[in-house]
Amino acid sequence: MLAVMLADIGARARLAARTLAETTSAQKNAALEAMAARLEKSSRAILSANAGDLERASTEGIGGALIDRLRLDERRVAGMAGGLRKVAALPDPVGVMTGGWRLPNGIQLQRVRVPLGVVAVIYEARPNVTADAAGLCLKSGNAAILRGSSYALHSNQAIGEALRDGLAEVGLPMEAVQVMEDTSREGARQLMQAKEWVDLLVPRGGPRLIASIEAEATVPYVIDGAGNCHVYVDAAADLDKALPIVLNAKVQRPGVCNAAETLLVHEQVAAKFLPQAAAELGEAGVALRGDSLARELVPAMGEATEDDWATEFLDLVLAVRVVSNLEEALEHIRRYGTGHTEAIVTEDRAAADRFVAATDSAVVVVNASTRFTDGEEFGFGAEIGISTQKLHVRGPMGLEALTTERYVLYGDGQVRAG
Amino acid sequence: MLAVMLADIGARARLAARTLAETTSAQKNAALEAMAARLEKSSRAILSANAGDLERASTEGIGGALIDRLRLDERRVAGMAGGLRKVAALPDPVGVMTGGWRLPNGIQLQRVRVPLGVVAVIYEARPNVTADAAGLCLKSGNAAILRGSSYALHSNQAIGEALRDGLAEVGLPMEAVQVMEDTSREGARQLMQAKEWVDLLVPRGGPRLIASIEAEATVPYVIDGAGNCHVYVDAAADLDKALPIVLNAKVQRPGVCNAAETLLVHEQVAAKFLPQAAAELGEAGVALRGDSLARELVPAMGEATEDDWATEFLDLVLAVRVVSNLEEALEHIRRYGTGHTEAIVTEDRAAADRFVAATDSAVVVVNASTRFTDGEEFGFGAEIGISTQKLHVRGPMGLEALTTERYVLYGDGQVRAG
Repeated sequence: MLAVMLADIGARARLAARTLAETTSAQKNAALEAMAARLEKSSRAILSANAGDLERASTEGIGGALIDRLRLDERRVAGMAGGLRKVAALPDPVGVMTGGWRLPNGIQLQRVRVPLGVVAVIYEARPNVTADAAGLCLKSGNAAILRGSSYALHSNQAIGEALRDGLAEVGLPMEAVQVMEDTSREGARQLMQAKEWVDLLVPRGGPRLIASIEAEATVPYVIDGAGNCHVYVDAAADLDKALPIVLNAKVQRPGVCNAAETLLVHEQVAAKFLPQAAAELGEAGVALRGDSLARELVPAMGEATEDDWATEFLDLVLAVRVVSNLEEALEHIRRYGTGHTEAIVTEDRAAADRFVAATDSAVVVVNASTRFTDGEEFGFGAEIGISTQKLHVRGPMGLEALTTERYVLYGDGQVRAG
Repeated sequence: MLAVMLADIGARARLAARTLAETTSAQKNAALEAMAARLEKSSRAILSANAGDLERASTEGIGGALIDRLRLDERRVAGMAGGLRKVAALPDPVGVMTGGWRLPNGIQLQRVRVPLGVVAVIYEARPNVTADAAGLCLKSGNAAILRGSSYALHSNQAIGEALRDGLAEVGLPMEAVQVMEDTSREGARQLMQAKEWVDLLVPRGGPRLIASIEAEATVPYVIDGAGNCHVYVDAAADLDKALPIVLNAKVQRPGVCNAAETLLVHEQVAAKFLPQAAAELGEAGVALRGDSLARELVPAMGEATEDDWATEFLDLVLAVRVVSNLEEALEHIRRYGTGHTEAIVTEDRAAADRFVAATDSAVVVVNASTRFTDGEEFGFGAEIGISTQKLHVRGPMGLEALTTERYVLYGDGQVRAG
């Protein structure tokens, strides 16, 4: 029964994707503007649906952080509309020729960027993702199947209706954006395995969602994995740079994936750097957990367990280890890192080069904060997530991550000889 | 027990990959030359191991085509050595800067091509794949885990020893190339699920292997899928081009994935084109299976069943259908195509544009044979396969398909403000 419904959704998405693939940038941008205007016009209906979701969530005893993410207000609705207009202003990734050459036999070869087709997004109780994901999918020429949290269903449906009205207004198929009514786990599982309908699955959520995708998905997906990010302060570090970098990487926004979780300090500078860093981090509310050498220098520090090295705290907690050389830092990162972002602070070009060459992470940073691993910071204009996998796309994902390339050959009757 | 062995193999590959990632092009090329020389020097040992494999296979009643693929001779060993030397001559994909810009805050960003790490290849009883795959993996900086067919085990091991001697000769780790001794189905299944050790799995084999990968693999993979390729002869086709193109696409090498399997002909040219095409195809030994309109024009033609439209014959068989317009041809391709290669023959630019825009295949060809979908023809120098998936790489795969990109940021103490 559910599978039948998913097949309907999938078939409609496939049909809409066919239209979107041939839709011009001007039409897509007009749709994004119309969708933004409809969101603003439907603000009252969206907030009323959201009030209902909030009430149901609170009667189910849902906690504060989730409620905060679930809650919409005028400002957040305006933020969604603004996001769509910003996506309209970005360059269209579709149709870009990424390569072209003439074969010896005269055939003209072109490699061209095209939409993937149908993109499914599974996300948690953040209704703004409905608008954000729909906008990014539309701009990149893909039909979107949006499966949000059951807690946000009515909010998502109200947002979805406004977006679909915007599509219809400019003559594009409403089925280009579909909000799934079925928010059961079984429904999610079926979506993860709908190979016939889904060209890419993008999960936007925490470790439990990622684990479920990794265990159950058979459709192609790109994951936004954990960021157990390291900052290594080298023997040749300029400590006046190191201190602000460590503080920024840990404190500026501790709950995100590009925040630092472990500080590695070369023993030659540890005695000078660590007490000062501990004082400033402590003032910022950071709890430190150190190895024995770090605790000799800063006795007030807690003791780091084996688990601490492997933990993405996403909180004001920092593990601290003193290493005897660069290689020991690299070995630690290889053992505990998640391949997201690692930073080195050093004035020694050879040490920086060795760190870059020997670190197998999506982003390696020399003398700056790990927090720069971000699509907006990189200049992509919008970010779908940060990939920690190696295939298809790695690091911050912009609109191009929602496209693929194909070849077009123009000949004049050529046939192959051998 | 098997899993423990795989973990040993995986850990050794991971360690070797670390060295390979920092190995220069000159070193890798020296290794490829040494491997080629060792293959030639070990020719007698390889042929003797192969003779044993052939004998075992024939006592097990293995048939002609498999035996032919399994059989090595002096010429084939020389071919493997030549293949390695050719790969040595190709440009190194690793270290290429694929992008770079300065962020507004002064950070210099670089996007750089790096190896994937460990590449596993599962293949059938073609011992030459052992050398080909090892060479491509080494050139792209990856450690290779090679799991061939049990029928070819001793051939593969003898080839592997020669390759490893070549690596050792130039001081590179022998574990960069490992031939799996375990050729059981269970061993293959474990390799398909060895997420900790395998960064990319490349299957090289028929539909049964592909189906097993799709059902069981949890490691990232790129598949070389089926090619149910179409040639559409439009109303505005130059029939003097159409006939050689159809013949070449079907006859030149019918057993490969870029051969044509279905011919679609516009009704306005069918009466003129089909009888002539049928005569020439018939002369070339091709059996035709047509729809009712095609059989009216060529009564000797067999009748096409529903299954025929969906079949990759890989043989001298061609399904034939008369369509009333371009849209009907597109609809047919959408329904039965596998997203590999489709060709249109037309002098009408608008028809060509519509065909290109509305066909969602890895390669679309205008006025040339489908047989050009090929890494060598495209100028990639070597081909790992032809991807029919949309993520990571689509169409013919060169050395770049065995790499990924990552970002390196060079700062001067920058921290993030908001």
